[in-house]
Amino acid sequence: MSREMLFGADIGASHIRVGRVVAERVVQKIEETTGRSPQAAARQIADALLELRASGMVRLGIGCAGRVCPQTGRVVFSPNLGWRDVDLAFEVVRAAAEVGLELLVTVENDVNAGVWGEFRCGAGRGTRNIAGVFVGTGIGGGLVIGGKLLRGASGGGGEVGHAPFEAEGARCACGRRGCFEAYAGGWAVEARYERMTGRRLKASEIWARRGSDPSAAEVWSKAIEVLAHLLLMLSAVVDVERVVLGGGVVERCNGLADEVAAAYKGLVGDDWDAADVVAAQLKGDATLVGAALLAL
Amino acid sequence: MSREMLFGADIGASHIRVGRVVAERVVQKIEETTGRSPQAAARQIADALLELRASGMVRLGIGCAGRVCPQTGRVVFSPNLGWRDVDLAFEVVRAAAEVGLELLVTVENDVNAGVWGEFRCGAGRGTRNIAGVFVGTGIGGGLVIGGKLLRGASGGGGEVGHAPFEAEGARCACGRRGCFEAYAGGWAVEARYERMTGRRLKASEIWARRGSDPSAAEVWSKAIEVLAHLLLMLSAVVDVERVVLGGGVVERCNGLADEVAAAYKGLVGDDWDAADVVAAQLKGDATLVGAALLAL
Repeated sequence: MSREMLFGADIGASHIRVGRVVAERVVQKIEETTGRSPQAAARQIADALLELRASGMVRLGIGCAGRVCPQTGRVVFSPNLGWRDVDLAFEVVRAAAEVGLELLVTVENDVNAGVWGEFRCGAGRGTRNIAGVFVGTGIGGGLVIGGKLLRGASGGGGEVGHAPFEAEGARCACGRRGCFEAYAGGWAVEARYERMTGRRLKASEIWARRGSDPSAAEVWSKAIEVLAHLLLMLSAVVDVERVVLGGGVVERCNGLADEVAAAYKGLVGDDWDAADVVAAQLKGDATLVGAALLAL
Repeated sequence: MSREMLFGADIGASHIRVGRVVAERVVQKIEETTGRSPQAAARQIADALLELRASGMVRLGIGCAGRVCPQTGRVVFSPNLGWRDVDLAFEVVRAAAEVGLELLVTVENDVNAGVWGEFRCGAGRGTRNIAGVFVGTGIGGGLVIGGKLLRGASGGGGEVGHAPFEAEGARCACGRRGCFEAYAGGWAVEARYERMTGRRLKASEIWARRGSDPSAAEVWSKAIEVLAHLLLMLSAVVDVERVVLGGGVVERCNGLADEVAAAYKGLVGDDWDAADVVAAQLKGDATLVGAALLAL
């Protein structure tokens, strides 16, 4: 039996995390500010692997912000990282070789990897079909159908934040109009509140003021309605048994997941089976763990 | 080698069709007005099988209007047939036994079966991921992901017509508000035109008048916009490589599929890959053939 070591990496716009995964858990990890170029990020990963004492047969799964081609594993476009058409696996294998490591590398979109982590060892365990909806600055998502990650024809599967909520609606960061994200993503909640009050607060601060600040209540009431419609859409299109709600904004807004679940159940009505709506469990480690498990 | 015969049945609100399928084609079929009870429909199917000279080992796939439980094959609820919680396979096996036939029966939702037919031997051939969107009186749909029918947790997969297009929008036949169907289903197009003009015309007649009748042009322009957003939603959620547009309204409105495709491509923009949009090929036989192939 060959000794095999398993690692995961999570490349986000601000931070890069590399960790060793044993029995579906992160046992040790390193976090750094993300290098600007793919080559710099690849070197960071290689160095982190050395520091985490990788040796022998090493498998590494990378979850990377941006669209990843499901056929080739190339990063097609990552607006947040500013990368286009990057063969990330190649870059990381080369950087690792320079420090004497031999790797087997898999690359996946970071949110898909996170949903896979929740499916395998978090809030989706025990199911066959889940949707992950992650509300942070934007709204990311991923789908597991029949026990498999739904990547889509061009790596766009589960990009639920950019499905249309309102035709000709609010301008979204993606360039289109009316996306769910443009109403309920963290940036949209903050921008709307600022337009109403002139004040710039974080989405979670606005959430905390709902009891005393009518503008805060109004902004969040709209965002909850939008998220409930997003879940209704998922019921109609993919009919998952469970929706895992996560992301920084959901984590920091106490009770938000429950309010979205209640609004969604109200919309579904009696003739359909509503999906279970649960909070994500793995928090910041979901992508790292999921990416590692996808490399197996 | 045992001789095996393959049949398909399509149970719709108005008509029931039973046909023999050889090499992915309907070689002979019988069409009747649908009996009101499940037992009556089951007897019609058994009699049709006899008439089509079924004998020996017979496999029958049924596509039935309504929600079908993916675990048990029971018809959970069929608003159009007025059936609730029907073990249709049991009824058909019993009716067939009474006329001396032994059957292996599979039951699927009629639209899912139709999408499967298009996937296997129609406009979806050669792909792995398709969405079927069928515009008739209502809007039905189905998804094939990774070469498998996406049934969903409770048989609601691919019910794209009842995803939300507009929160608190137009009242839909399903009881909810703002569904895509409530703007672009045949009944909705006809109702809107009637509200505007006082005249009751068929969706395809309204389509034919667009050049000379501003109300007709307005109603269809809205419906095309809505259908384009439905396709955009499918790109964002499941990112299929091909969308097959079919159904009676699409068939009778010459050029509609192309206009929807053009509007959808305009919405998608440059940073995403748009799905191919093509017209369905099997027309009225899609459900029958698809149901038969699902029984294999």
